[in-house]
Amino acid sequence: MSKELKIAIAGLGTVGTGLIKLINDNADLLKARSGADIRITAVCARDKNKDRGVDLSGYEWFDDASEMAVKADADVFVELIGGTQGIALEATRAALAAGRDVVTANKAMLAFHGTALARLAEDNGCTIGFEAAVAGGIPIVKAMREGLAGNRIERVYGILNGTCNYILSTMEETGRSFEDVLAEAQAEGYAEADPAFDIGGIDAAHKLSLLASLAFGTEVDFGAVSVEGIERIEAGDIAYAREFGYRIKLVGAAQQTTHGIEQRVHPCLVPQSSVIGSVGGVFNAVIVEGDAVGQANFVGRGAGDGPTASAVAADIIDLAKGLRQPVFSVPANSLKPSNPSPMSDHEGAYYLRLQVLDQPGVMAGITVILGEAEVSIDSIIQRSRAPGEPVPIVILTHETREGVMMDAVAQLGKHPAMQEPPRLIRIENF
Amino acid sequence: MSKELKIAIAGLGTVGTGLIKLINDNADLLKARSGADIRITAVCARDKNKDRGVDLSGYEWFDDASEMAVKADADVFVELIGGTQGIALEATRAALAAGRDVVTANKAMLAFHGTALARLAEDNGCTIGFEAAVAGGIPIVKAMREGLAGNRIERVYGILNGTCNYILSTMEETGRSFEDVLAEAQAEGYAEADPAFDIGGIDAAHKLSLLASLAFGTEVDFGAVSVEGIERIEAGDIAYAREFGYRIKLVGAAQQTTHGIEQRVHPCLVPQSSVIGSVGGVFNAVIVEGDAVGQANFVGRGAGDGPTASAVAADIIDLAKGLRQPVFSVPANSLKPSNPSPMSDHEGAYYLRLQVLDQPGVMAGITVILGEAEVSIDSIIQRSRAPGEPVPIVILTHETREGVMMDAVAQLGKHPAMQEPPRLIRIENF
Repeated sequence: MSKELKIAIAGLGTVGTGLIKLINDNADLLKARSGADIRITAVCARDKNKDRGVDLSGYEWFDDASEMAVKADADVFVELIGGTQGIALEATRAALAAGRDVVTANKAMLAFHGTALARLAEDNGCTIGFEAAVAGGIPIVKAMREGLAGNRIERVYGILNGTCNYILSTMEETGRSFEDVLAEAQAEGYAEADPAFDIGGIDAAHKLSLLASLAFGTEVDFGAVSVEGIERIEAGDIAYAREFGYRIKLVGAAQQTTHGIEQRVHPCLVPQSSVIGSVGGVFNAVIVEGDAVGQANFVGRGAGDGPTASAVAADIIDLAKGLRQPVFSVPANSLKPSNPSPMSDHEGAYYLRLQVLDQPGVMAGITVILGEAEVSIDSIIQRSRAPGEPVPIVILTHETREGVMMDAVAQLGKHPAMQEPPRLIRIENF
Repeated sequence: MSKELKIAIAGLGTVGTGLIKLINDNADLLKARSGADIRITAVCARDKNKDRGVDLSGYEWFDDASEMAVKADADVFVELIGGTQGIALEATRAALAAGRDVVTANKAMLAFHGTALARLAEDNGCTIGFEAAVAGGIPIVKAMREGLAGNRIERVYGILNGTCNYILSTMEETGRSFEDVLAEAQAEGYAEADPAFDIGGIDAAHKLSLLASLAFGTEVDFGAVSVEGIERIEAGDIAYAREFGYRIKLVGAAQQTTHGIEQRVHPCLVPQSSVIGSVGGVFNAVIVEGDAVGQANFVGRGAGDGPTASAVAADIIDLAKGLRQPVFSVPANSLKPSNPSPMSDHEGAYYLRLQVLDQPGVMAGITVILGEAEVSIDSIIQRSRAPGEPVPIVILTHETREGVMMDAVAQLGKHPAMQEPPRLIRIENF
């Protein structure tokens, strides 16, 4: 007597077709490891006739995902449509309401509706697997929910968007501008035609909000994430950072502070030799700090059909084994409020680039403003330019409260020698 | 109505007491994440009266681990005694035979008896958690058994012994000798008084044999691991390796080859910039290569009370949640034979250091021997010395079959100018 787990897949883009290939190619392994026949029974996508390079003839076709979610002969509804709401959300709700487990790669949907969907799942005796929603092939959801479950998590941070990491790595290697490298990344398929979600930090923030929930047992609260993208990073900033022994990365971090839980995504100077500083290209990295384990680091491909299908398959295999558990580690009804700590209370060091007219007393004026605000200077670079040209002054500060720093920056912006708004980037000495 | 999971702990060294502290300190978290009260009911160690800094008065005391394994009021038997056989094995068998789940950090026992114990567990409807047996706090067992279960694993390798990594890192940083650094590591508690298991590669081989079973669905076969330790690594080898852009690490690797499955632990030149090359000190690293995920890297503390207790706690939480599954990913009776591939069939590049008398024709003699064996040379370093002194010649080869290389080395050893046996170290361009 062989168990069977029947799967309906909604969305047949590269991940959906990658999943079909994986389930077919590795059928023997999946059966050995899950103890069940994992069988695709139904699929759904916008265009039935598109050639996707996989044979769909053995699967029941649905035009409507919500209809498939309830009517397909399936135990699990795999949602690979994407999007915060609309069809994906509607079909996911329908599947859960019908008591069917859901596996999804949709971080945007979970960032906004994660807590409510987890409640719906648990009310209906089912669950949602979302390993593929965070850091692609890295099994970080499982690591946090299970592998490190004995730990009080103090901080989780990482590189959560491969597109940004590719752009920043390439800018550093080549010295080229953000616009240039972005255009190339789009041409090579590393960045979307509409890259706003990636380069604006939104995609990383979606993922971070899920990691924060797992880490701290709190409701998913995308609105609590402070988000800044990489659009304003200049080649010059990367070069200065390098002089100080840093690289600029788009970092997502969630941590417990005395003021609450801080969730933030922003460009950040990190030491070149740190784990995060040494992860280049399209790779993702997640670092978890727990009271017992110390630091555990996870690095791998954060996107692509193979890695994402690997993560979806892991969730499916768990379900085939009957391993079913609360979506965000603890039951949805016992998730606590996210208790956000305002960024004005963030404590950290800062990189400050000022473009000033080179005239007598400017440096004194700047340092007096910082001194009066009690912002302590760690290092300064100022290089001479042709007389009359604006000159960049780059300052690294010691740790200070962000509210204090922002006030000082506002003061600096009013200084008569200032040629453009001061540029502030956070530093983390991970 | 609250569920309860009762735990009996055998062995109260640093890990055992660390586990008691973790379970007490993080009781709220463990309950929230497992849905159960995880309660220690019994403990057992050699000396009841030793002060361990934890209060044992609430737990039933046993002098005999095997007696505790069957008589304690417990659902789970936690084995932290250690040792390949003797008390640990006897008590583990007793617990499993009594239908109790076992959680263990004992790689030595599992390396020799893993398959048999897995069968015994499954015959009695229970399981063995051994997250703590491999790479300490890194949740690699869970990652391989579950998180990457959709992948056909091609290779798993890493740094599996923190003591060796600490010694080799320190030798590189300081230029000091192996003996010197080992003595210091012993004084600082990074190496055991009897370091043979660590520096001889045995401990890493125990862990590798478990990873290989998880990766390939094969019986645990410690005897199939080719093992070489770091005792013969000289400061000079580390310096030469560095000149070529490499570091020397003790590497454990298991991979599928056309001849079978290769399992090996040995010192190895690895690129400085590789993940494995950049992991220093007491850290462990495991890299898993799968057909879907590509490469997934895991880095963390491989030993110590906190990380090990973190791993033991994860297994306990799984049991409290009712997540019970085959020990080595697939049912013990369907594990395949380990199908070892002999090291003579290993394909790889080599570092060769020859100590020769500097006399006319020596280099010709050496290169002719290598040429006749069809071993192709990648690079050579030879530096002049005072006339009459032995001079080191260091050669890196291209990839070749190990059997061929060993024959060539035997020929080289017979060359009249050779002052000591040739030194051969494998290279991996990870």
